[in-house]
Amino acid sequence: MITVWKEQEGAGVTFPEGFVASGVRAGLKTEGEDLCLLVSDSEATVAGVFTTNRVQAACVQYSRRIVRGGTARAVLINAGNANACNGEQGDADNRTLAEWVSRHLSVPPDAVLTASTGIIGHLLPMEKLRAGIEAAVGALDRDGDTDLTAARAIMTTDTYPKLRAVEADSDQWVAPIRFGGMCKGSGMIAPNMATMLAFLTTDARLPAELLQEALARAVAPSFNSVTVDGDTSTNDMCLLLASGMGQGEISRQGAAFEDFVAALTRLSVSLAKEIARDGEGATKLVEIVVQGAATEAGAHRIAKTIAESPLVKTALFGNDPNWGRLLMAAGRAGVPFDPNRVEARIGDFIVCSEGRSVEFDRQAAHDYLTNREVQIILDLNTGEESATVWTCDYSYDYIKINAEYHT
Amino acid sequence: MITVWKEQEGAGVTFPEGFVASGVRAGLKTEGEDLCLLVSDSEATVAGVFTTNRVQAACVQYSRRIVRGGTARAVLINAGNANACNGEQGDADNRTLAEWVSRHLSVPPDAVLTASTGIIGHLLPMEKLRAGIEAAVGALDRDGDTDLTAARAIMTTDTYPKLRAVEADSDQWVAPIRFGGMCKGSGMIAPNMATMLAFLTTDARLPAELLQEALARAVAPSFNSVTVDGDTSTNDMCLLLASGMGQGEISRQGAAFEDFVAALTRLSVSLAKEIARDGEGATKLVEIVVQGAATEAGAHRIAKTIAESPLVKTALFGNDPNWGRLLMAAGRAGVPFDPNRVEARIGDFIVCSEGRSVEFDRQAAHDYLTNREVQIILDLNTGEESATVWTCDYSYDYIKINAEYHT
Repeated sequence: MITVWKEQEGAGVTFPEGFVASGVRAGLKTEGEDLCLLVSDSEATVAGVFTTNRVQAACVQYSRRIVRGGTARAVLINAGNANACNGEQGDADNRTLAEWVSRHLSVPPDAVLTASTGIIGHLLPMEKLRAGIEAAVGALDRDGDTDLTAARAIMTTDTYPKLRAVEADSDQWVAPIRFGGMCKGSGMIAPNMATMLAFLTTDARLPAELLQEALARAVAPSFNSVTVDGDTSTNDMCLLLASGMGQGEISRQGAAFEDFVAALTRLSVSLAKEIARDGEGATKLVEIVVQGAATEAGAHRIAKTIAESPLVKTALFGNDPNWGRLLMAAGRAGVPFDPNRVEARIGDFIVCSEGRSVEFDRQAAHDYLTNREVQIILDLNTGEESATVWTCDYSYDYIKINAEYHT
Repeated sequence: MITVWKEQEGAGVTFPEGFVASGVRAGLKTEGEDLCLLVSDSEATVAGVFTTNRVQAACVQYSRRIVRGGTARAVLINAGNANACNGEQGDADNRTLAEWVSRHLSVPPDAVLTASTGIIGHLLPMEKLRAGIEAAVGALDRDGDTDLTAARAIMTTDTYPKLRAVEADSDQWVAPIRFGGMCKGSGMIAPNMATMLAFLTTDARLPAELLQEALARAVAPSFNSVTVDGDTSTNDMCLLLASGMGQGEISRQGAAFEDFVAALTRLSVSLAKEIARDGEGATKLVEIVVQGAATEAGAHRIAKTIAESPLVKTALFGNDPNWGRLLMAAGRAGVPFDPNRVEARIGDFIVCSEGRSVEFDRQAAHDYLTNREVQIILDLNTGEESATVWTCDYSYDYIKINAEYHT
């Protein structure tokens, strides 16, 4: 059981023992930091999950191979250019980035992971990146300001940096374990095995297989349960580095490992929700809970279909308690259920019972929907399983951001 | 082979022999006609395809049962109220509508089909409909003006009525066959087995099984290949009535039947494209062709995923030749292909070859995208199969229409 959960406000990936980081400007974005370096003092155990899109950026294919080796020393992340759909030149440029970092840090090239985010189909500006890497190495540090700058350096259309730091303890652990993390959105977000992008750190010591299992389990109800627009990116990646520099050690499956998964999941959910909250053009964070389902997979599929329905998302922007659209979206999810047993709730308002309209205070429900965080519950009343998905509304700004973003 | 294809401008469902129709105002919408009646002089053979949404309106379940009988005399269609999610009262009201029509026309109640479109979860205003039905029966007529009014009476957020009339001939037919049709969109449009709503007529004589087969085959590459927002309605319905009053008769499968399917498909595609063109907030009709695929189903799935991608649709609104989003959407469709063989074309502009960027005139491609009709071709270069899907862009008006549409 997790007995301690102490969040460290303003801290991030360098909060666990054994990590330094930096965020600098290389000049890929029109302004601000756009290059981030995360380095482990010692050889870290590494786990990763990657996009399932058939079209994959150079960094995805490259980093997946490194993760298979089980250890790494550094992660280089650039924002502003996805280095996707660039053919062999893209692969070569990606390898060059890893080599430059490896030389500066005096570590083997295959100890360096890479991640990219930004526009598809443009070659990386390598001269800018060469200078940027030198600056990033010089700026490596471990403190809250650094974590904040690092989290800012991986942003694209995000409106604020997303980072977390936690010291957790469990009655099953030999010592407290620290976790850090940062992630970014905020469009082309419908992660499938990972999100675009999340980097998690811990000072616990775990074998690579356990670390990978923990990450895969933590990602399912967190990063894989967030959707902004249903569009899965070519660059999605979630990496977890364990430095082993703390006192915590988890050597096998069992209660201690289960609590490690629980803590990692809690951290991941907390970060994932920030991606939905800061979705492109979003005015609110929407939590969609589907319960009373026959299977968890079915509940998840219905929740995700509701979360990705343009008609539901525009109604939420309009603060309209339009429960008919909730039922429509649930019905097209391809999951069997009896519409005549469905209850729908918007916040505390029961808006539909036994599949049909009930009296409710429409003005009060409308007012509830003007909140920055709202909850929708659909109870199928057919089983015991449930799932939660986080999303945001569709506003004029979603159209504006994506119609005016030019290639 | 179809040898004659003569469209009759401004005509619709009463163009084939043996049909009358009307469109009147019952007062369900805030303004304009909202009740349509289509009547066959004789017992017509009938075929129908219906929504696959698990949540189905009263009219869908009712009309599906009538279609199973193979014949019908009339179709009553109301706009402004979907009569969905209204429980047993909704079913009872729907039966009452059919009974009222049957009494006026002196036909059995189960000779009357019903269809509804509009808001979900509100009971039908039966007194208004009782008076409306009386007016609709009195207004029954056969001419272009009537067809136009009928097509207008089934509209919701459509900006113009959608109707077609054709006289076709084939070297396999004993006589020319006439076809008529009308349909409506324009939100909650991602038909799956049918669209919301289409009514087709013909004066040919066919057995019900053949008629049903012809309709099912015609719907796949037409109404089922259109998507506005990916949201499949609870009320989708496509009905085809054959009066048998013309000289054309098709009694069995073979070349004459194949040409009947071809003619019906051509009519259906023509109507279906109007739904995409008039999608909520649309500024352009977009034809998405996926070719060089291993299977037709795979090509269709990729084309539909591209057509429903919010990032592709907003880029189209912004006239941005953003081919990276095309590849991203194709890659997340769940269909295997080699990204390094893909060629993408926007109109005549090759914008991506072998999965990566090629030089093209960006300003000219941008200018092409400002047209009211644009074409996008994705060639996977792996097989011989292809599919075409029609959609529209996402504009500020899509958000406006759907955020301000209140329950």
